[in-house]
Amino acid sequence: MTINQFISFLLPRDKSFYPLFEKAAENLRASADNLCLAVTATAPEQRIEYMRMVEKLEHKGDEIAHEIFNELGKNFITPFDREDIHRLISRIDDVLDYIHGASKRMELYKIKHFTPEIIKLSELIQTSTHELHTAIMELRNLKNLRKITDACVRVNSIENHADDIFDNAVAKLFDEEKNAVELIKMKEILSALETATDKAEDCANVLESIIVKTA
Amino acid sequence: MTINQFISFLLPRDKSFYPLFEKAAENLRASADNLCLAVTATAPEQRIEYMRMVEKLEHKGDEIAHEIFNELGKNFITPFDREDIHRLISRIDDVLDYIHGASKRMELYKIKHFTPEIIKLSELIQTSTHELHTAIMELRNLKNLRKITDACVRVNSIENHADDIFDNAVAKLFDEEKNAVELIKMKEILSALETATDKAEDCANVLESIIVKTA
Amino acid sequence: MTINQFISFLLPRDKSFYPLFEKAAENLRASADNLCLAVTATAPEQRIEYMRMVEKLEHKGDEIAHEIFNELGKNFITPFDREDIHRLISRIDDVLDYIHGASKRMELYKIKHFTPEIIKLSELIQTSTHELHTAIMELRNLKNLRKITDACVRVNSIENHADDIFDNAVAKLFDEEKNAVELIKMKEILSALETATDKAEDCANVLESIIVKTA
Repeated sequence: MTINQFISFLLPRDKSFYPLFEKAAENLRASADNLCLAVTATAPEQRIEYMRMVEKLEHKGDEIAHEIFNELGKNFITPFDREDIHRLISRIDDVLDYIHGASKRMELYKIKHFTPEIIKLSELIQTSTHELHTAIMELRNLKNLRKITDACVRVNSIENHADDIFDNAVAKLFDEEKNAVELIKMKEILSALETATDKAEDCANVLESIIVKTA
Repeated sequence: MTINQFISFLLPRDKSFYPLFEKAAENLRASADNLCLAVTATAPEQRIEYMRMVEKLEHKGDEIAHEIFNELGKNFITPFDREDIHRLISRIDDVLDYIHGASKRMELYKIKHFTPEIIKLSELIQTSTHELHTAIMELRNLKNLRKITDACVRVNSIENHADDIFDNAVAKLFDEEKNAVELIKMKEILSALETATDKAEDCANVLESIIVKTA
Repeated sequence: MTINQFISFLLPRDKSFYPLFEKAAENLRASADNLCLAVTATAPEQRIEYMRMVEKLEHKGDEIAHEIFNELGKNFITPFDREDIHRLISRIDDVLDYIHGASKRMELYKIKHFTPEIIKLSELIQTSTHELHTAIMELRNLKNLRKITDACVRVNSIENHADDIFDNAVAKLFDEEKNAVELIKMKEILSALETATDKAEDCANVLESIIVKTA
């Protein structure tokens, strides 16, 4: 235990952060849920509705982030290091950005064909954000560190899986898609989806490093 | 206030860093100014001159960074955490790298047509680096934290704006540019410019996390 | 010297980390060695063997990382900040990922022609990981900080060199490769290789920031 850890052990910690963390985690999960609904929608007008929801949740994420940064400026004793809170919230924001980025590109590039790989990657993003939600809900009591670590391990393995799907999807494009412009479009969409799972892994890494410090 | 913060409050802080931070911020701003001049130049030989200047300022940035890292090794009490100084300088270096990267690619790929989107993104980079300069000039007294926070908020919103311009520019390329090789070239240039605004946002995030700690 | 640094000076540090760091560094170096052997192999079946080895070493890297994260949870006084150890190991993992990513893509995209640029970039990755190995071997005694700093400076300059090679290789592709799909394939491979040198630079930056704190 370092001196700082000892001091924060003695002092009461501000509990106002937990509801905010949880709001951020729920918002992230909702964004991924809507992405999945968008890529599997059968009616185009419904798809657009889900995409609008993804956009809205990204803005909501920005508001939650600002609320947390404001609290950081006000509260004296935070439950974790101020900079870890800052990093965690910034990384959650990154995932939201890429989910929204993928959704926005699908619309902008007028994608008509939602391939099995697009759907699979979206589902992996969804599972990944649900795992992050589970981990973040545990921050409140920190009694079950194992539960956080296990969720983080799963986020990591989802990223590996997404990587494989992405690589194989691109290889397939190279084999089958003769129109280079269409190939680039599809590669861009797949890449945004795959990067969302990378950013989720970054979130898990921040969570793991928070756990490491409380050890 | 943590024990470390209390101790650094009692001890005199080394002021020699501020001129170096400010030199780094001015150098960054000059690089973006020259990028803007390059993309709007009417005579090709003038354009090349501005591009050479961007290259020169990237090397100058490396020298300033090394000077700061040397100071970090010598000075006992730094005005902020050593690692934050390290991160701030590394992030400034990243912005310089992408500005130079964009300029270098324009030359290497023999770009003839400087589109409105290239010019607009360059101007956003310019505004962003001017905001960072403003924020960094405030580090010296830290009396006006609001001024730093506001500049960082603007850097963030510039990044969002650049994102939109990039996405729309790429969608337009997909619609209009039938030559895939030309499309890829232009996409690469736009992407380097857009990434420069991302890296400027990373700088702003480091500045915000420094502010969070002094709160 | 901060209070924490003073305390860790007084207390015995756990030495069990050094062999693990060194194992991670050796594993990274072996991965780059096998990449070089793969891209210069004359017989396709041999190339595949080296590529399998790169894959195997990536998995081994994951195991070493987990071993270190477990130790972090158990040991009381770590030789450096827990989060720096976490970051160092995560960055080493990133380099391994990109080396493996490049190798995997070469196989997936059925690359037949191993260009001088692919070979040159692979050699730069190799030199870079050997420098990181040298630096990490010095962590054990920290008597020769200069040796670590010098290795980090070289990793940085290798990254600059790799950047130039990448940019010129892509410019050459734009000039010479008329098949856009082939162009994209080759660009992807080169980009994965170049990113491996970026990630090696990130490792060097973490090492430098560890050194900065012990200064």
